[in-house]
Amino acid sequence: MLSKHSHFVVPLCHDKQTSFLNIPTTVSPSSTAVVYDQHGPPDIVTRFTEIPPVEINENDVCVRMLAAPVNPADINRIEGVYPVRPPVPGTGGWEGVGEVHAVGSTVKVLSPGDWVIHSAYLPGTWQTYVVEDESLWYKIDKSTPIEYAATVSVNPLSALRMMEDFVALKPGDTIVQNGATSIVGQCVIQLARDRGIHSINIIRDKPESDEVKEKLIKLGADKVFTESELEVKSIKNLLDDIPEPLLGLNCIGGNAATMVIKFLKQGGTMVTYGGMSKKPITISTTSFIFKDISLKGYWLQEKNLDKAQYRCSIDYLLALARAGRLKYEMEMVPFKDFHTALERAMGKHGSRRKQVLKF
Amino acid sequence: MLSKHSHFVVPLCHDKQTSFLNIPTTVSPSSTAVVYDQHGPPDIVTRFTEIPPVEINENDVCVRMLAAPVNPADINRIEGVYPVRPPVPGTGGWEGVGEVHAVGSTVKVLSPGDWVIHSAYLPGTWQTYVVEDESLWYKIDKSTPIEYAATVSVNPLSALRMMEDFVALKPGDTIVQNGATSIVGQCVIQLARDRGIHSINIIRDKPESDEVKEKLIKLGADKVFTESELEVKSIKNLLDDIPEPLLGLNCIGGNAATMVIKFLKQGGTMVTYGGMSKKPITISTTSFIFKDISLKGYWLQEKNLDKAQYRCSIDYLLALARAGRLKYEMEMVPFKDFHTALERAMGKHGSRRKQVLKF
Repeated sequence: MLSKHSHFVVPLCHDKQTSFLNIPTTVSPSSTAVVYDQHGPPDIVTRFTEIPPVEINENDVCVRMLAAPVNPADINRIEGVYPVRPPVPGTGGWEGVGEVHAVGSTVKVLSPGDWVIHSAYLPGTWQTYVVEDESLWYKIDKSTPIEYAATVSVNPLSALRMMEDFVALKPGDTIVQNGATSIVGQCVIQLARDRGIHSINIIRDKPESDEVKEKLIKLGADKVFTESELEVKSIKNLLDDIPEPLLGLNCIGGNAATMVIKFLKQGGTMVTYGGMSKKPITISTTSFIFKDISLKGYWLQEKNLDKAQYRCSIDYLLALARAGRLKYEMEMVPFKDFHTALERAMGKHGSRRKQVLKF
Repeated sequence: MLSKHSHFVVPLCHDKQTSFLNIPTTVSPSSTAVVYDQHGPPDIVTRFTEIPPVEINENDVCVRMLAAPVNPADINRIEGVYPVRPPVPGTGGWEGVGEVHAVGSTVKVLSPGDWVIHSAYLPGTWQTYVVEDESLWYKIDKSTPIEYAATVSVNPLSALRMMEDFVALKPGDTIVQNGATSIVGQCVIQLARDRGIHSINIIRDKPESDEVKEKLIKLGADKVFTESELEVKSIKNLLDDIPEPLLGLNCIGGNAATMVIKFLKQGGTMVTYGGMSKKPITISTTSFIFKDISLKGYWLQEKNLDKAQYRCSIDYLLALARAGRLKYEMEMVPFKDFHTALERAMGKHGSRRKQVLKF
């Protein structure tokens, strides 16, 4: 089921409004939304629009959005370059947190004032009010910092699932990753530390790499190397007393992926979830035959997350966030300044911090 | 346990012979063996030698070898370039079939005249007599053509295990492979046909490719393409009504591996078991993330084959061979002409047919 506000914008609302003549119903407030009528450069094709009130059916929950991030995948979806092309016209945003504004007559589990996030990945979080069936909302603890509640279901959840779904890691084991400064990367470091798992982290060579290393070590990283520091004969000599990693995570490709594979233990697995360098992965046939390496991929949208597992994962991650044991930098931007946040998220102003819209 | 003949050549035999003074025992005949004292070019470092009789203990079985192949891995092991370096001095050969010559006093399952193959991968089949514990022998049907009995446990078994251990294939499914003319490749085609599984086969471009295609189609191949025939915009248009393959097998690397990956269905797996082109495998990050491709490796020696599964696999394969439903070309060579067979196996005389030593 799609958000009523997001994809059937004006015509459906009109139909619904017609029905007011016969049956008295509850309606949502009108919603201010960021929509796009066609795929293209997001800063050009997105615009604010006002969506008229929609009917709140007996199973529906009307949510006032509190905060929603601008994720890279949101940008790709609007560009139309994402493998799943949502239909146009559409409303932007796929994750966020809101407060229940009103509920339909048969809704029992949620009440006005509750905080909720989506229990499924649906478009349309960049708007002030969303109406959807109660089964699609999941109540969370209101003491959660709003920016973590808004962003938990994509990056931190990906980090957690990648650490749990491919290799059975136990305390004392090791994980290796590139792109360690990304939000997923930072989550991996902290989740590993929380579980007594060592992390080896690979970062790009840049002038401020010493500061970056310090920051990641503060988060819980065991080792941080720049790519050039790994141009050595025996990469494994760098491990000191840390066991060779069973699991590697790759969001870069090219040489940075080769480095991850080099660190892996016999029988290890590398999971690819991004390709920031736009370079392919190159691997010898002997790595497969004699080192028994496995290469796999991870895509959140494609995982049919079990509902119970999803809830359990989200609760665990939000508990860590509330305890200050899961941290990453974000920048809160008022919803009215959406286009500034969008441009920042697109890397147009140097800032690369995750942009979170505050409604 | 290692073959008594193969690795503890003269000194141990002397020790054992000394014991004859005290306890009367059965001894094996002396054994003519192909041994090497150090790693190096196999045609230079291997030589015939005569190994004195060894004691047959109560649990031992003395086997007169009937036939044993010269496999590429045998050559690599002697060269010392194989990831597992057997100790030197050593006796060559890792598979073969023999006839029970004599048994120790407590051996009940095997009797003189039985045909046996190893139930584990052990060195030392290039010799006329082998003495080993009864637990290391596995009795087979004597009506099996000797050359298939001698070669079943490496190539055909690899083909079968790769088809069973990675993806659950059912009749109507499809498999894609490169190196289709190899013995493993030919086994894959025939095993697929036997199970109602389609096979797509990739071969090198060569002048006689039409004959090769015809031969593979006769074996049961659904489709055979040269690499250059796959230089098309949409490789999938070549499939006609055959479903996209769930499993790919790669023994080449480079471009031929890319072709296998291109054919794979969403969520498909490619298993690498060789790298004949000596080129690495190159794969985009999006193949992992959005196409959910998995890459894995297969190495027979590394598989801890369950004993029951091993027997069951061997019996199935030998039954197919007896029925003429599993065929591949071999060349039988008298054991005394070992060095001719070796040179042929090393590709020194143009012939690439598998060489099988006949004792």
